[in-house]
Amino acid sequence: MVQYSSRLDLTFAAVSDATRRGILERLGKGEASITDLAVTFDMTLTGMKKHIRVLEESGLVATAKVGRVRTCRIGPHRMDAETKWMETYREMLESRLDHLDAFLKSRKP
Amino acid sequence: MVQYSSRLDLTFAAVSDATRRGILERLGKGEASITDLAVTFDMTLTGMKKHIRVLEESGLVATAKVGRVRTCRIGPHRMDAETKWMETYREMLESRLDHLDAFLKSRKP
Repeated sequence: MVQYSSRLDLTFAAVSDATRRGILERLGKGEASITDLAVTFDMTLTGMKKHIRVLEESGLVATAKVGRVRTCRIGPHRMDAETKWMETYREMLESRLDHLDAFLKSRKP
Repeated sequence: MVQYSSRLDLTFAAVSDATRRGILERLGKGEASITDLAVTFDMTLTGMKKHIRVLEESGLVATAKVGRVRTCRIGPHRMDAETKWMETYREMLESRLDHLDAFLKSRKP
């Protein structure tokens, strides 16, 4: 349970930044080097490396170094648990609204 | 676009903490005072107030003060955009896997 929670913590924190979401969308189309990504997102290499580290720690991105180039691609973690959490939460809210709606209708003359 | 991004940033950051997700799940069942929540989650009032502030800033929780009691309930923001982002991202990954699968099959003798 703690492990599950900390995985959700890491993933939600990783996607709480517009640049990191952009990196994921970019890597979804194909792998890229850190240098490519830095150019695409108009950032320093150091800045991009920090973002990649956060994404790698959450399992959303995987990297491999070949020679002097570190290549990034989509990692093994596909946000299944995170999507599930959001859906379950929204379903709970929906079901409460349905109950409220039925209650209000039942009180109409 | 910037506003949209910063809303996503705020919401994902808000749910990147297990206690805050727990608070949302609790409030999904009905409103509660900050004192109730502090007891339920075994925290100080000050600690709980901080979590509530983060949730309130992201629109996930709304609070109202009646007399000396601040009551919390689910706010107007239902994570539609966040759920949509996660679903779109996962669909993109799925579609890439499908392409890869078709490609590999087409190369079989």
